[in-house]
Amino acid sequence: MITETTPGATVIKPDVPYKPRRTWRNLFIGNPLSSADAHKQTIGKAVGLAVFASDALSSTAYATQEIMIILAAAGSAALGYVFPISLAIVTLMLIVTISYEQTIHAYPDGGGAYIVARDNLGEIPAQIAGAALLTDYTLTVAVSVSSGVAQIMSAFPHLLPYRVLIAVGLVFLVMLINLRGVKESGVTFAIPTYFFVAVMFITVLTGLVRHFTGTLGTVVNPPAPLVEGALVTVTPFLLLHAFSSGTSALTGIEAISNGITAFKEPRSRNAGITLIWMSAILATLFLAISFLVIPIGAVGSDSETVISQLARTVYNGEGAMYLAVIAGTAIILIMAANTAFADFPRLSALQANDGYLPRQMTFRGTRLVFSRGIVSLAVLASLLIVLFQASVTRLIPLYAIGVFLSFTLSQAGMAHRWWKSGHLKPEQEIKEAGSTIRYDRRWMTKLVINSLGAVVTFIVMMVFAITKFKDGAWIIILLIPTIMMAFLAIHKHYKSLADKLSLEKFTSARPYSRQRVIVLIAGVHRGSLAALAYARALSQDITAVYVSIDQNDAEKVRDKWSIYGEGVRLVILDSPYRHLIEPIMLYIEQILQQRKPGEMLTVVVPQFVPSRWWENLLHNQTALLLRFSLLFKPGLVIVEVPYQV
Amino acid sequence: MITETTPGATVIKPDVPYKPRRTWRNLFIGNPLSSADAHKQTIGKAVGLAVFASDALSSTAYATQEIMIILAAAGSAALGYVFPISLAIVTLMLIVTISYEQTIHAYPDGGGAYIVARDNLGEIPAQIAGAALLTDYTLTVAVSVSSGVAQIMSAFPHLLPYRVLIAVGLVFLVMLINLRGVKESGVTFAIPTYFFVAVMFITVLTGLVRHFTGTLGTVVNPPAPLVEGALVTVTPFLLLHAFSSGTSALTGIEAISNGITAFKEPRSRNAGITLIWMSAILATLFLAISFLVIPIGAVGSDSETVISQLARTVYNGEGAMYLAVIAGTAIILIMAANTAFADFPRLSALQANDGYLPRQMTFRGTRLVFSRGIVSLAVLASLLIVLFQASVTRLIPLYAIGVFLSFTLSQAGMAHRWWKSGHLKPEQEIKEAGSTIRYDRRWMTKLVINSLGAVVTFIVMMVFAITKFKDGAWIIILLIPTIMMAFLAIHKHYKSLADKLSLEKFTSARPYSRQRVIVLIAGVHRGSLAALAYARALSQDITAVYVSIDQNDAEKVRDKWSIYGEGVRLVILDSPYRHLIEPIMLYIEQILQQRKPGEMLTVVVPQFVPSRWWENLLHNQTALLLRFSLLFKPGLVIVEVPYQV
Repeated sequence: MITETTPGATVIKPDVPYKPRRTWRNLFIGNPLSSADAHKQTIGKAVGLAVFASDALSSTAYATQEIMIILAAAGSAALGYVFPISLAIVTLMLIVTISYEQTIHAYPDGGGAYIVARDNLGEIPAQIAGAALLTDYTLTVAVSVSSGVAQIMSAFPHLLPYRVLIAVGLVFLVMLINLRGVKESGVTFAIPTYFFVAVMFITVLTGLVRHFTGTLGTVVNPPAPLVEGALVTVTPFLLLHAFSSGTSALTGIEAISNGITAFKEPRSRNAGITLIWMSAILATLFLAISFLVIPIGAVGSDSETVISQLARTVYNGEGAMYLAVIAGTAIILIMAANTAFADFPRLSALQANDGYLPRQMTFRGTRLVFSRGIVSLAVLASLLIVLFQASVTRLIPLYAIGVFLSFTLSQAGMAHRWWKSGHLKPEQEIKEAGSTIRYDRRWMTKLVINSLGAVVTFIVMMVFAITKFKDGAWIIILLIPTIMMAFLAIHKHYKSLADKLSLEKFTSARPYSRQRVIVLIAGVHRGSLAALAYARALSQDITAVYVSIDQNDAEKVRDKWSIYGEGVRLVILDSPYRHLIEPIMLYIEQILQQRKPGEMLTVVVPQFVPSRWWENLLHNQTALLLRFSLLFKPGLVIVEVPYQV
Repeated sequence: MITETTPGATVIKPDVPYKPRRTWRNLFIGNPLSSADAHKQTIGKAVGLAVFASDALSSTAYATQEIMIILAAAGSAALGYVFPISLAIVTLMLIVTISYEQTIHAYPDGGGAYIVARDNLGEIPAQIAGAALLTDYTLTVAVSVSSGVAQIMSAFPHLLPYRVLIAVGLVFLVMLINLRGVKESGVTFAIPTYFFVAVMFITVLTGLVRHFTGTLGTVVNPPAPLVEGALVTVTPFLLLHAFSSGTSALTGIEAISNGITAFKEPRSRNAGITLIWMSAILATLFLAISFLVIPIGAVGSDSETVISQLARTVYNGEGAMYLAVIAGTAIILIMAANTAFADFPRLSALQANDGYLPRQMTFRGTRLVFSRGIVSLAVLASLLIVLFQASVTRLIPLYAIGVFLSFTLSQAGMAHRWWKSGHLKPEQEIKEAGSTIRYDRRWMTKLVINSLGAVVTFIVMMVFAITKFKDGAWIIILLIPTIMMAFLAIHKHYKSLADKLSLEKFTSARPYSRQRVIVLIAGVHRGSLAALAYARALSQDITAVYVSIDQNDAEKVRDKWSIYGEGVRLVILDSPYRHLIEPIMLYIEQILQQRKPGEMLTVVVPQFVPSRWWENLLHNQTALLLRFSLLFKPGLVIVEVPYQV
């Protein structure tokens, strides 16, 4: 041990070679890391794109398909709307991208929807944003992993019966990786992301070239469609419904705004450029896929994904390139889940630090990660996967409301921020928890852009909520306010606790005028006499208390006490119903009622400690039960005198 | 409260109307009973027969059938051996009855195999007897309930798929009845027992009359046999095997010797006569059934019992008398299980009192019964029923070894007792725990009878063990020694505990020369200052200890402590791996190593107590974890200062 004396306190640092003991857990999640190992490394734009884009880009794997499944209800002719709807979604994407680009510059230390709402809109909107985001991250894991599994099933249909099991297994694999701690080191992320981008670009380019040269065929042996055609006619509602499903393409677009600090300086500029690149790639791939699925006659199905149909049509069968597309898509989808595993624990720690979630969420585990958040996310996402049987189509109606709610709150917060900014004098500044507001010359333009973003995303959210209400959106509409109420209740508890513990108006603890001691004995032996000896060191005012269940035993105790009790008075509580705890609690209550100010009551409990664990089964755990009962009586102190045997 | 002062102690009796609070449990098992309600009532021979005979008499329901199932393997001609084998079993019954009659007179306070073996053979044989009996009682419940359910299934075959469920349900019903406490009041028992005896006598008499007048037919639509005929030839092994199965008829014959104290005076005489009556009825019914099954062509089957086949043949169909036989048999079988529920808890409490089972088994629950024994029995028996799918034929090979082992030990113990008795002078006596040995004129005769009993039952046990070894007897042959070893291990623990707690050679506890106090703090607030105030009342030598996970927090604590810490020294333990418990334990170990004699270390732990249970989820339960870690360090005392919020 190295001891270092600083004014007012002795700091004891463990010896250098001190290592926490090894456990079976370390096998899975690695050896503990010291807080000193926390490192900070920054990344450039190319790696940044790889790190943050997996969630956003992966949505190209399912967005087009979900539009098709809705439109298919009105027959194959209605599929003509797939491309126009995709164009509308890309327009929306453009607005959201520009809005977020502004946020990135305003919040160089990271400006997720929670922080922006907290700083600019207040407690309730911030907690709504928090509830929406946590729900959303959970759904990201469920949807991405389910979709990744669906890609694998497209290539290996005989695995279909095990889809739920495989999906839950993958969630726990990603959980383990995150419990070990993922170094956002770029390379691990760069390879699969750029691999996916490359194979997808090659696929859609080949597809487009073959289409325009007239050599692109149609899907051979198309899978069974999920919805049979021509059940309804094309209505505005149907189109809006299909549009809502397609907006899942926008999920993940906010990821960069959470992670600005990871970028090299000038970080806001680098992050902003990366965001624009990401959106451009996403929009291109999404539009290209939506364009190609029609000529090849792809079918929205739950046994084979549209991506799989596209790939085997473009490549004329299931060769190496087909497998590359499937593998690339499956891997990027599982990496998208990994993004949620980075964001959920970070946000829940932030909320816990603000007092809206259990404090334990702020605790970094042995591997320096927020392990409780990681485990919570894995459990919740697995639950969703089991409940919805790993079906992307059944999960989609729950998704995106949370996304668009957080978009709306974030943009509205930014709009309010520009409004405040415009009313500052050039030299003034407002310090907020997450950033500093200064006067901005272009505040009106920026206010208009973020306001437009807020309004558009709000409208999309409402459209989504209405068109998808009965498909499952109602669950989220009920869930988000419920979660928010829970956050507020937790906050109330911590606030009242802090008030009660506060040292304001505290002068000093009143010294005790009298110390009364009760020694609970179960017999007269070395254990109880050790407790008596301790009690004698505490006070002169001691009462030994014995609960009598059997009269013969009680008489023996009385006789032995007269020899060994050192003159201390003994009270025998008669317990005709053979209860142990209840008579003691009654007796203590009586004493507490008669208590005068400044009087302290101490209850001394002798406690055997057996040397082997199984020997505990041979003893009543009375001391433990007493502890739980006594804790709730105000103004008494519990002393346990262990007696190792 | 009534307070009554007796020399040396104050006895506080609760007020007369004091009643323990009502809980949902009371709905099922009734309101608590006061120890003063324990009553003692004695019964005559007629009621005594009803109370104690159900286990023995109920075995007529399956013994014959089990002989037939074994013989059936050698074809229907082999069934001619059913009656001779039954005669051999009745001879065995005679020897055992006379042996036990002697035990009853020697042990007027109750002489089960455990007590007799303990007093006359020593610790190991007594614990073997205890293990054998507890195993046996568990099997009695499993076999009787399974057989009772089989009778019900014979009348209502469509219930067959639910037999395991019904059997487990019945076990828990009998458990609930026993948790309420069965007053052995006779009438409850007399009605079904005499009903069973009456209908069975009517049935076999009618059957015999019809047989000898030539009007008895054969079974109409016999059920599918369990074993198809003529697979093997009749060998001595097969006959011994069948004999072994039939010896299950002897189970329950020892019940009266356990319960002698329940009889009116002269109790040994009354109990002895009741035993002889019981054996006579049992032998008659068993022989009559074994005689009748052959002419009617009954089949050993697991879809219809032999009793059911006999009844519907004798009564020409399934009329009222048939249903009376089924109902009577089913009820007496379930009552047989009830006998085990009286014996198992009584024996386990006796063994626990001797220190061979956890002390908790001696504790009488709110209804004055040994509730832990009752629940243990129900759980173990249900487990057996599920494992063996409520099949009597599969359970039988496990049964009877325990019975005959306890018979052997009991008779051997009695033989040894007569030997000692014969070597006493007329005026001498030997006091034993369970009875007093005096000189007996007829000691040689009695020695011969009990020795014969011991030898015969030992031979039967060996025959059983060998012939049934691979059918399941091996389980019991492994189990009984294992259980006995566990009993001895438990005894060793209690003995070493008693030695270590013993006040022999104890003069007085050494007063503490120095009292060191450590106050563990997680921050500086009213809770930790309350703990500090308490610590100041204990000693001048106080050290506050804080575990630092975050350097900023540690600095805040140090600054606040310099204001509020009242000059008490503060040690900050640096925890680079963010552990809470481990650094504290290391620090305390160091202090304990430097300790001088007479020095006492007290660890004061502040403990928040939230007002609502769910608020506990918002706090680390560090105090509780600390308690479990600190308990194992010798020579320190744990003080918890609760702080109710």
